[in-house]
Amino acid sequence: MKKIKNLIVGCGLSGLVLAERIASQLKENVLIIDRRSHIGGNVFDYKDIKTGITIHKYGPHVFHTDMKHVWDYLSNFTQWHFFHLETQVVIEGIKTALPFNLNTLRDVFCPSLAERLEQKLIETYGFGTKIPILKLKENGDNDLRFLAEYIYNNVFAGYTGKQWGLRPEEIDPEVTARVPVYISRDNGYFQDKYQGIPLKGYTGMCKKMLDNPLIELKLNTDFADIKNEIFPERLIFSGAIDEFFEYKYGELPYRSLRFDIRTENIEYYQKTAVTNYPNNYDFTRICEHKHFLNEKSNKTVISVEYPQPFEIGKNERCYPINNPQTQKLYQQYQKEARKLKNVYFIGRLGDYKYYNMDICINRALEFFKTIKGENK
Amino acid sequence: MKKIKNLIVGCGLSGLVLAERIASQLKENVLIIDRRSHIGGNVFDYKDIKTGITIHKYGPHVFHTDMKHVWDYLSNFTQWHFFHLETQVVIEGIKTALPFNLNTLRDVFCPSLAERLEQKLIETYGFGTKIPILKLKENGDNDLRFLAEYIYNNVFAGYTGKQWGLRPEEIDPEVTARVPVYISRDNGYFQDKYQGIPLKGYTGMCKKMLDNPLIELKLNTDFADIKNEIFPERLIFSGAIDEFFEYKYGELPYRSLRFDIRTENIEYYQKTAVTNYPNNYDFTRICEHKHFLNEKSNKTVISVEYPQPFEIGKNERCYPINNPQTQKLYQQYQKEARKLKNVYFIGRLGDYKYYNMDICINRALEFFKTIKGENK
Repeated sequence: MKKIKNLIVGCGLSGLVLAERIASQLKENVLIIDRRSHIGGNVFDYKDIKTGITIHKYGPHVFHTDMKHVWDYLSNFTQWHFFHLETQVVIEGIKTALPFNLNTLRDVFCPSLAERLEQKLIETYGFGTKIPILKLKENGDNDLRFLAEYIYNNVFAGYTGKQWGLRPEEIDPEVTARVPVYISRDNGYFQDKYQGIPLKGYTGMCKKMLDNPLIELKLNTDFADIKNEIFPERLIFSGAIDEFFEYKYGELPYRSLRFDIRTENIEYYQKTAVTNYPNNYDFTRICEHKHFLNEKSNKTVISVEYPQPFEIGKNERCYPINNPQTQKLYQQYQKEARKLKNVYFIGRLGDYKYYNMDICINRALEFFKTIKGENK
Repeated sequence: MKKIKNLIVGCGLSGLVLAERIASQLKENVLIIDRRSHIGGNVFDYKDIKTGITIHKYGPHVFHTDMKHVWDYLSNFTQWHFFHLETQVVIEGIKTALPFNLNTLRDVFCPSLAERLEQKLIETYGFGTKIPILKLKENGDNDLRFLAEYIYNNVFAGYTGKQWGLRPEEIDPEVTARVPVYISRDNGYFQDKYQGIPLKGYTGMCKKMLDNPLIELKLNTDFADIKNEIFPERLIFSGAIDEFFEYKYGELPYRSLRFDIRTENIEYYQKTAVTNYPNNYDFTRICEHKHFLNEKSNKTVISVEYPQPFEIGKNERCYPINNPQTQKLYQQYQKEARKLKNVYFIGRLGDYKYYNMDICINRALEFFKTIKGENK
């Protein structure tokens, strides 16, 4: 039985930010553990030995944010490779930009139809705007309605079905049709002010965050195995909240992914880092890793992403499945969590919420402020 | 005289599927024989020694299917190179996409005509649809009728004539004119959900299917030479049904092919794997093999395909010649076949039917279900 100041469970972004803040700002000792054999959670990357290419083990991660303070915070631990993600999509054998923009119209449709659509979109909504296809559908114009239907059928229905394992009739068009057409020639996937990839990889950045003598790291360590031996004054838990409570109300469901990582004996496999396949095959996308840091090799490494149901002990939790039923279940656990003193739940698994990286970091920084307030 | 459990004649896809299923699922011994010196039937491929390029010995094979269970079944034995076949056609010296689509119109006609046709096609039939030229011909519009005539004369009349060895007046326009114009910019030859080529070649995949100690393979072995020595409890025959019955009702006719396989001292011979020549020369198409697996070499290997009449002992059976007369003849053999106990005919030659690879595999898997049912 051992008393310690801070125990952080989970060494993903949330845990890392809090370990770093508590050690550097409060000068307190932190023990951070993770059941995996590596730091970084799902942003973990590593150099492939044969090709020297940096691999995003759990799928493509491109950092993007409009929050200057989040960008500045991470910039303490890394330099940036300035990178704007462009993704392509395969529709009827044509590779074109996603989200749908004016370039896409020119690639997919014949010039006369593309021009007519372009003119109508610009006249109706203005150049530079983003219009959800749900809104396009409600337009009285036949061409614009055709465009909305086309995008719905050729991009979103198939992708959503594969991503969430739903049959076409189970897909709620009100939800999927939120995706916009971008009335612009910007092929960029994000439009955030700050976009980039840590110059030495995410793992390099995460290592820097842990580089403080007050922080002790234990990998391959499951919380369940040490919780009866170690008694922290403050427990920050970024693991799955349902698992923490031993699933007493039932399992919170997630969607998982299987990555088929392959080395191909060609210089480039595709034009951009990510290509989406809404209609063909059972995978949703193929990621070519050398694009992220513009690494050179006469070979290339790709990962083919197959969505899967999450099963405890079999694969990893990726996407919380958000619906009224699961939210209700989560709230039961949340209520339970609030009864505990000095135990805090954060992160994608602790909050049961899909977080972009910047939101996740902002959430951890905000949470740190409350800890700091209590300490005063 | 030797008794055995299962004898499969023919080591093409049908035979392979059944050998694999019977051995792995029923745990029964299987002897599979082929008169050729290799496995795989007409999907056999091999590495050309000089260039390292994988050659499709019996012409281009691109696997494509909408049947997930067929794709998943083969995926047990191979990884996939994701490949979408595009083919070109030479018309009046211009190389363009086949089937005819909106891109083809722009390549073949002058811009003003192409645009007029494009607009009329989209207005009349809608973007994304496929219209048989027979239907186009019936349209009241002069431009659309011109297009139908143009495609008929410049693509189908010549190609069909060479393929089947028919004079123009022998060609039935009702049959050939079924080929569509695709009102789309998709240059893909197929639109199936799953399309690809086994990553290590078809022969690699076929080898894996045979990789079971219960399966014994004998190549260079003619059924006629062993049928009086080996007595199987179950005989699955994927050879020619007329040959099995010693042609007692006459020969079932086939069309055959001659491949002129040539190494060219240039990096690429053509833009796509297959180029069709409906009007020029006596060959129907040229296949450039390095495209299939995106193999690199400073040389290239092409095969030039000459349709030929099939002659027993001289060349290989390729395409069953389907007409009422040959169907009647086939049915006589089929009737004969039904009288036999524990003898089953399958595959392109056993069923006297042109099968795409996926249909062939599905047929074999369905047939296996009936065997499995009997065993219970």
